[in-house]
Amino acid sequence: MNSKLKVAVCQLRTELDAAVTMKKAEEFVRRAAGDGAGLVVLPEMFNCPYSSRYFRRYAARGHEGVVAEMSRWAKENELYLVGGSIPETEGEKLYNTSFVFDRAGEQIAKHRKIHLFDVDLPGMRFMESDTFSPGERITVFDTEYGKMGVAICFDVRFPELFRAMAVRGAKLVILPAQFNMTTGPAHWAETLKLRALDNELFLVAASAARYEGFDYECWGHSMVIDPYGVTLAEADEKEQTVFAQLDFDRIDEVRAQLPTFLKLRRDVYTVSE
Amino acid sequence: MNSKLKVAVCQLRTELDAAVTMKKAEEFVRRAAGDGAGLVVLPEMFNCPYSSRYFRRYAARGHEGVVAEMSRWAKENELYLVGGSIPETEGEKLYNTSFVFDRAGEQIAKHRKIHLFDVDLPGMRFMESDTFSPGERITVFDTEYGKMGVAICFDVRFPELFRAMAVRGAKLVILPAQFNMTTGPAHWAETLKLRALDNELFLVAASAARYEGFDYECWGHSMVIDPYGVTLAEADEKEQTVFAQLDFDRIDEVRAQLPTFLKLRRDVYTVSE
Repeated sequence: MNSKLKVAVCQLRTELDAAVTMKKAEEFVRRAAGDGAGLVVLPEMFNCPYSSRYFRRYAARGHEGVVAEMSRWAKENELYLVGGSIPETEGEKLYNTSFVFDRAGEQIAKHRKIHLFDVDLPGMRFMESDTFSPGERITVFDTEYGKMGVAICFDVRFPELFRAMAVRGAKLVILPAQFNMTTGPAHWAETLKLRALDNELFLVAASAARYEGFDYECWGHSMVIDPYGVTLAEADEKEQTVFAQLDFDRIDEVRAQLPTFLKLRRDVYTVSE
Repeated sequence: MNSKLKVAVCQLRTELDAAVTMKKAEEFVRRAAGDGAGLVVLPEMFNCPYSSRYFRRYAARGHEGVVAEMSRWAKENELYLVGGSIPETEGEKLYNTSFVFDRAGEQIAKHRKIHLFDVDLPGMRFMESDTFSPGERITVFDTEYGKMGVAICFDVRFPELFRAMAVRGAKLVILPAQFNMTTGPAHWAETLKLRALDNELFLVAASAARYEGFDYECWGHSMVIDPYGVTLAEADEKEQTVFAQLDFDRIDEVRAQLPTFLKLRRDVYTVSE
C-alpha cells in the first residue's frame, strides 16, 4: 500500500459555455499531473452553472459524454480523478453525482448527493430538491493508497455519513462542494475541520471559484485538512489549483496519540457503520 | 415553557486549598444570581486541581459535603446550578462527575464523564483512566426551559453523544471542561461550534481559568454558542464570569431555515438515540 499521495484541487470557475469549462478542466488536470499529482479533484457541478435556471438545460445534453471525457483525462494523465459532480440523468430523474476514475480511466465509484441543499436562510434560499433526487448510498472505494470516500457539499453537514465512511475504512474523504457567501463564512472551514478531526482522516474539499455577479456566488476556499484538523492547503476565492502532500501513516499516529476514533463507546451510543 | 434564559459561566481558577475555592465559587454564584442568571455553570474539577497528583487526595474528603454546599448555593440563589465536576467516590472507584441542581436545591441529574482523557500528544500526556472510572450513561434532564444535557470535557470529541442528547430533546448542552495549551488552540472553539451547529442547539462550555505555572495549564476560553454556530459569549484565560441570554425559540427557527437536524437520513445511516 502506497502511503504518500500528492493531491491537487482544481478550483475551476464554471463558465456558462460548458465546452469552454470542459476544455479548461482538461488543461487543469493535465497541468496538475505535470506537477506530480496522483489524485485530482474537481468542484461540485463543475461544468454546469450552480443555479436552478441551468440545471435541466445542462442535464439535457446527458452525462455520458462528460463521463467519457473525464475517463480519458484520468487515463491520459495516469491519475485518480474525482470528477467533482455533474447532473446525472436516470429516466426522468436527475442526480447530483460524482464519478470517480482510476489511473486506467476505469470508473471505480459513483456518489449521488444524499442530502440535497434545501435551505431558507436570510439572504440564501435554495431548493435543490426542486430539480434533483437524493442519493441513497454511502460511497467508499478502494485505491492503491487504501480506501477513500466521497460526499458532496451539503452531505458534509451530517456527521453520521462521515463516521460511516471512516468506519468502512476511508482514510481520505473527498468533498466536491459549493458553499456560498452566507454559509461559507459562517460554517465552511470549521465543518471541514471537524469532520476530519472527529474521524482522524484526511479531507479534501473542492469548491468552484467564485463567479462575481452570477446567480449563486460560491465561497471558494477549497481546503485540504489532515487527521489532526490542521489545514495543509487552502485556496482563496479565485480560480487556481492547490496541492497537498498526504502521508497516510499520519492517520495511525494521530489515532494513537489522541484516541477518539479508536475509543468510541459503542456500549453507550450507536455508531453508524 | 419559559423560552428565555440568562446563563452565567463562572470561569474560576482552582486553588490548591479547596476551602478557598469553595468560598470563591459560592461568591461567584451569588454575584451571577445578582446579575440575573437563571443557570450558573462551574468548570470541570472546579474545586480539585486537575492533576493526577491531587485527584485522590481531594477525593478522600468525599463528595457529599461539596454536593450539599452546591445544593445550598442553588437553593439560596434560586437558580439552576451545573456544578462543574468533582471527584465522586463509589466504593473503590472514582468518577469525574457533574451534579445538577434545580432552583429548590434538589439534585436533578448527575453525569459521570464517559470518555476519559487519555492522550499521548507531543507536549501533552495525560492518563485520566489511571485514576478515574468511565461513566456509562447519557445525561439529559428536564427543566422549566425544556430538556438539557450534560457532558464533560473529552466527551465533546464524540459526535454521537451530542447527537443522542439532541435526539432525546436537549435544547442546551452544558460542558464543564478543561482543555489545555496543546488541545485548546488546536481544537477547542471549532469543536464546540460544530457540536452546537450539527445539532442546532445551544452549547455552554465552562472552563477553569488558567493557573500559570501549575502542572496542567488549562486553556480557559469558556464559550456560549447558539444553534447556528454563533459565539454569544467568550472568556479569555483569566478568572471571570461571562453571561449570555438564550432564546430557545431560536432553535426551531434555525432548524427550519437550515434543515439538517430535521433531515437526517435514517434510511442511509444510523443515528444514535
